[in-house]
Amino acid sequence: MTKAAVIYHSNSGRTKVIAEHVAIGIKHMGCEARLFDCTKEIDFEYLNTCNAIVFGCPTYMGSVSGQMKLFMDSASEVYRHQKWRNKIAAGFTTSSALSGDKLNTLMQIALFAFQHGMVWIGLDLPAGVSASTHTGDRMNRIGSWIGMMSQINGDQSLDLSPAKSDRETAEYLGKRVVEFAKKLEK
Amino acid sequence: MTKAAVIYHSNSGRTKVIAEHVAIGIKHMGCEARLFDCTKEIDFEYLNTCNAIVFGCPTYMGSVSGQMKLFMDSASEVYRHQKWRNKIAAGFTTSSALSGDKLNTLMQIALFAFQHGMVWIGLDLPAGVSASTHTGDRMNRIGSWIGMMSQINGDQSLDLSPAKSDRETAEYLGKRVVEFAKKLEK
Amino acid sequence: MTKAAVIYHSNSGRTKVIAEHVAIGIKHMGCEARLFDCTKEIDFEYLNTCNAIVFGCPTYMGSVSGQMKLFMDSASEVYRHQKWRNKIAAGFTTSSALSGDKLNTLMQIALFAFQHGMVWIGLDLPAGVSASTHTGDRMNRIGSWIGMMSQINGDQSLDLSPAKSDRETAEYLGKRVVEFAKKLEK
Amino acid sequence: MTKAAVIYHSNSGRTKVIAEHVAIGIKHMGCEARLFDCTKEIDFEYLNTCNAIVFGCPTYMGSVSGQMKLFMDSASEVYRHQKWRNKIAAGFTTSSALSGDKLNTLMQIALFAFQHGMVWIGLDLPAGVSASTHTGDRMNRIGSWIGMMSQINGDQSLDLSPAKSDRETAEYLGKRVVEFAKKLEK
Repeated sequence: MTKAAVIYHSNSGRTKVIAEHVAIGIKHMGCEARLFDCTKEIDFEYLNTCNAIVFGCPTYMGSVSGQMKLFMDSASEVYRHQKWRNKIAAGFTTSSALSGDKLNTLMQIALFAFQHGMVWIGLDLPAGVSASTHTGDRMNRIGSWIGMMSQINGDQSLDLSPAKSDRETAEYLGKRVVEFAKKLEK
Repeated sequence: MTKAAVIYHSNSGRTKVIAEHVAIGIKHMGCEARLFDCTKEIDFEYLNTCNAIVFGCPTYMGSVSGQMKLFMDSASEVYRHQKWRNKIAAGFTTSSALSGDKLNTLMQIALFAFQHGMVWIGLDLPAGVSASTHTGDRMNRIGSWIGMMSQINGDQSLDLSPAKSDRETAEYLGKRVVEFAKKLEK
Repeated sequence: MTKAAVIYHSNSGRTKVIAEHVAIGIKHMGCEARLFDCTKEIDFEYLNTCNAIVFGCPTYMGSVSGQMKLFMDSASEVYRHQKWRNKIAAGFTTSSALSGDKLNTLMQIALFAFQHGMVWIGLDLPAGVSASTHTGDRMNRIGSWIGMMSQINGDQSLDLSPAKSDRETAEYLGKRVVEFAKKLEK
Repeated sequence: MTKAAVIYHSNSGRTKVIAEHVAIGIKHMGCEARLFDCTKEIDFEYLNTCNAIVFGCPTYMGSVSGQMKLFMDSASEVYRHQKWRNKIAAGFTTSSALSGDKLNTLMQIALFAFQHGMVWIGLDLPAGVSASTHTGDRMNRIGSWIGMMSQINGDQSLDLSPAKSDRETAEYLGKRVVEFAKKLEK
């Protein structure tokens, strides 16, 4: 059975919502998906048997949150033994601004994955907002291709932010990850 | 007298509007500002006497437009003689998506400026949109600090897009550039 | 039959040597490989039927050369029709400095590929130089994972620079690209 | 009196050596320089009165070390009050590979500084190695302009690695930082 993991850091619970929707997309494709909070104990044995690992965290001060980076550094042992080599990788991030240097967070995660010899999957979706008539209800609302971006309104409840279209984009990414994980499995 | 240049590429005229507003900000501070379309002849002699140079172009396929890059490459002679060393530099970019890899364009321009030994000035403005009540009428609407980003609605006339707040952000960047150009002049 | 293309820009002929070695690696795996000089006419019909496309150019002033960027922008029509979606992509770059902002060139190419919905393959090789005893004769001499980097000595003949280890790294990348192109073909 | 701080993370002591040489360069210019280990208590009151802050850490798994990022995130309170606005910033990093994604670490630090509204100073030095006759004894050996890079040989003693030329480059960066800090002071 195809196996996947979603490793995330979430302080306010918003990034966790995105992580959960990535996992929903993964499971929708008949693939096992386990969620890991990067600040808690990580089951590296499970990770090492996965076909795909998706990484996500808020963008803090222009890059991956410190908590997420501590996890990434803790994977240097895995790196030395190349245990994630040729697995599928993908990423997501959140912040309160529209652009908000989120691209830098995703590039940072992608470079981490490339050191591991992983194969990076992005989003093959047009930008959801690119005209005055667009209301933000289409997938890839923020306009990103290397990975999934969500913009968070801190004044809204967890029900309303992350936005529905961001949740759908996260599910789409999860499905896309499995599509490729299955192909590489053969 | 403090002298500045704004070098831009613009296909649809939208990025030119941003360039013009950067120049308005520069002039507002009592500084000379000349605009250069990078696809036409560039007065390198003028540039070499400037205190500040601001670079801007649309983001095409995730980075600086080819036309702008050809100009940047043509400045390799200037680079060899370090004629822009210690001048102030700043940047702006436009694209139809909200994030749209615009950050990568600005990083690319900044790296170019650092090769020239220039001093990079960003935006010291909070993100204009970060809550559900924000309508996009505040400066730094897109949320960028390394430089100025504008999101363009292709279905609107040049009067409406770039948005008013994006024009104000461009003017603010122009003013900030002069503030530092004057300090370094002494 | 698996088909691949290597699209390159080369002014001095050095980057062309790297492109040729990527093609050698591709052919070694029983895959067709056609080389395209990006400043000449490109056979987009061939590209659209490829399983993998590898992009490479010198790093000029910190990023993709203007000539290469013009080609990349010319692929925006392909982008609109998503004709390269789910194809394998990879990249290489050269410059005379050891680091020399080559990473930025590769990130720029990768972001371009992600807009196309392509799947990015990097290098799963340890850094070739990481101790005083290392002479630079091992693959991945410069230490890059997102793609292949070559450092060029302008005072050496084309026979000696690019270095042998850089040529071997290019061949390795070509082989790796086909390995994944074949898996995705199924 | 012009005041500066060097904030660093160092596990093996090598990055600390670079930090110390940045401080030597700063003091050489008649400027106060205090060193802070980012894993220990930071005197934010001192930092808030500085004219310049230089940030440096090893590159771990392609980006800023987790320890350094935790410090950077802890400065989000400073960010909210813009206490580092218009101060000079610069950066350095180390890793065992020649390129080794060090550029990404420096871009990450620079983006952090731009969020603070700081003014970024890079290196105005040609690449120290760009021909077969170059032995690595010239400054900017690795070839970087956004900030200072050092390549570490783990098999050498602290006396020999970081290399002499890397130490000289660090001192040069320290001097350059003060040159601009003094100009902005006026």
